[in-house]
Amino acid sequence: MRRAPQAVVIGDSRAPRRVLQTAAGVGALLARRGITLVTGGMGGVMAAASRAALRGGGVVVGIVPSVDLAQANGWCTVVIPTGMGHARNALTAIAGDVVIAIGGGAGTLSEIALAWIHARPIVVMEGAGGWGDALAHSEVDARRSSTITACDDLDALDVALRRLLPLRRAQRR
Amino acid sequence: MRRAPQAVVIGDSRAPRRVLQTAAGVGALLARRGITLVTGGMGGVMAAASRAALRGGGVVVGIVPSVDLAQANGWCTVVIPTGMGHARNALTAIAGDVVIAIGGGAGTLSEIALAWIHARPIVVMEGAGGWGDALAHSEVDARRSSTITACDDLDALDVALRRLLPLRRAQRR
Amino acid sequence: MRRAPQAVVIGDSRAPRRVLQTAAGVGALLARRGITLVTGGMGGVMAAASRAALRGGGVVVGIVPSVDLAQANGWCTVVIPTGMGHARNALTAIAGDVVIAIGGGAGTLSEIALAWIHARPIVVMEGAGGWGDALAHSEVDARRSSTITACDDLDALDVALRRLLPLRRAQRR
Amino acid sequence: MRRAPQAVVIGDSRAPRRVLQTAAGVGALLARRGITLVTGGMGGVMAAASRAALRGGGVVVGIVPSVDLAQANGWCTVVIPTGMGHARNALTAIAGDVVIAIGGGAGTLSEIALAWIHARPIVVMEGAGGWGDALAHSEVDARRSSTITACDDLDALDVALRRLLPLRRAQRR
Repeated sequence: MRRAPQAVVIGDSRAPRRVLQTAAGVGALLARRGITLVTGGMGGVMAAASRAALRGGGVVVGIVPSVDLAQANGWCTVVIPTGMGHARNALTAIAGDVVIAIGGGAGTLSEIALAWIHARPIVVMEGAGGWGDALAHSEVDARRSSTITACDDLDALDVALRRLLPLRRAQRR
Repeated sequence: MRRAPQAVVIGDSRAPRRVLQTAAGVGALLARRGITLVTGGMGGVMAAASRAALRGGGVVVGIVPSVDLAQANGWCTVVIPTGMGHARNALTAIAGDVVIAIGGGAGTLSEIALAWIHARPIVVMEGAGGWGDALAHSEVDARRSSTITACDDLDALDVALRRLLPLRRAQRR
Repeated sequence: MRRAPQAVVIGDSRAPRRVLQTAAGVGALLARRGITLVTGGMGGVMAAASRAALRGGGVVVGIVPSVDLAQANGWCTVVIPTGMGHARNALTAIAGDVVIAIGGGAGTLSEIALAWIHARPIVVMEGAGGWGDALAHSEVDARRSSTITACDDLDALDVALRRLLPLRRAQRR
Repeated sequence: MRRAPQAVVIGDSRAPRRVLQTAAGVGALLARRGITLVTGGMGGVMAAASRAALRGGGVVVGIVPSVDLAQANGWCTVVIPTGMGHARNALTAIAGDVVIAIGGGAGTLSEIALAWIHARPIVVMEGAGGWGDALAHSEVDARRSSTITACDDLDALDVALRRLLPLRRAQRR
């Protein structure tokens, strides 16, 4: 496999400064580890993570609601337009080897539910509120024996990613 | 508008007898009121509601995961194949003037979240467990000022439907 | 199976009077045979077929591009909103036991191609121009040994439907 | 905009050696020009173009039918799983600033039709047969005043890409 591991970051298109800072930290970490970032390509958490990942030299993919490649925020290196509106959540939910939720409302909730169905490991950054916090350490339903992993800081996320992703040696440094 | 009001019934493809009885009651009520029933076309809650609605003379639509019309349970009068797997939840979520949740796991949760985003009125049948019960009287996020309506029996559902749907006089009898 | 056979009628959302008359004839025939009509729910060929089928007492389904049930033309008895824009063509293409093309531009062409991939029998009404005429008697590619059936009038369509659909005795009268 | 221009290459998942060589030439050219390659992620034309682009150091995206990232051919640097089967053609069709068809059957035809609807510039590599050749220099319908561009070799494609894409100076070398 030539592709790098992929992590989807999901969260609100508008969020408080503190949550955006968390998103930026996550994006920077992903870039540092050589993990491709995938988001829904819009603002808020998606943009904050994307900007930080791009600055860190990472690959940043945005899967946007409209058919227009220009709808994506300005920090994507690849844009996938869908024309499917919020139904594109069904695509973002499965677009990674792991899904990282930072806060989040109904859109994020739909993505967590669909990621759960498709057996994607799910991590939430604790303290960001919303559905991420509400579902930390929980199971969405009984089909999986695992629970949603909760990380209270970037170090914990780093540890979780090493466990969940098939990182190659170079990426582990 | 020539079409009848449409109600989507969502819930697990496998469920305890008590929950299936609730689903059957809901399906029968919808048929009696001349409301078209839409489901995901599979088993469990979907099949129980569909069978009862069909027996009551209702129109029953199944929006199924595969490309195959024969995938639907045997009580649909119209089948919409999608070939989209669980992503078809994005379609069922919005396929009615109202969405009725009966229990439910991750699939139902994804549909509730997407129905919420698209401003569909959401009703849950209380006592069926799962995400339906968990979200009764709640809001999914702050974008809507309303909450999810909870009904503890079919009479309460009947009242809720009269309030939420544009029923014509003949349908109100 | 409790559902009636389903036929998808595809064609342009704007069309000359002559083509609309053909569409109306097809819609009326489907209703007369107890075959559910499915269209993309918009104007032109879709509306003309739907109106005639509704007048004939038929079941008429519209699978529309937006998330709004009210987008459908006024002759649908069931509306399936998608929010997928032109990507909903992937749904209309497979929403029947047979697909009937009447003229048609790029949208119709995409539906013919996808119907072909999914092994749906395809019939074109000859003389309506567009891609329907262009592909009459042809194969889209080599994966199927059959060709696209061409009918030059409603009687020929009636014969073709009897051959292609599992009509029950009552429907054959 | 930080992203590079994106070109979608469409064509059969099985193809004769000569067509695969053309696909490889196209993939290599795209990499040389710093243009991101997007394909449906499967075999044949998609794999040949992807392999050549990857060898040339390019970014290679595969939008695959299943929900499984591992379904992609081994030369993708980014994989977008869809779970939508052939309906993912609606996504590949619009996933670039330009669409390049090399031969192609019904799947390719559906993508050309949808790319046309969404006003994507379409180029075909002449001589590869299939729907690419059949539609060279043609219009799909009357909604656009342009026609499908036909290129008889890589030099012609290079010229066409310079005209159709907003290449930056460094990329034009």
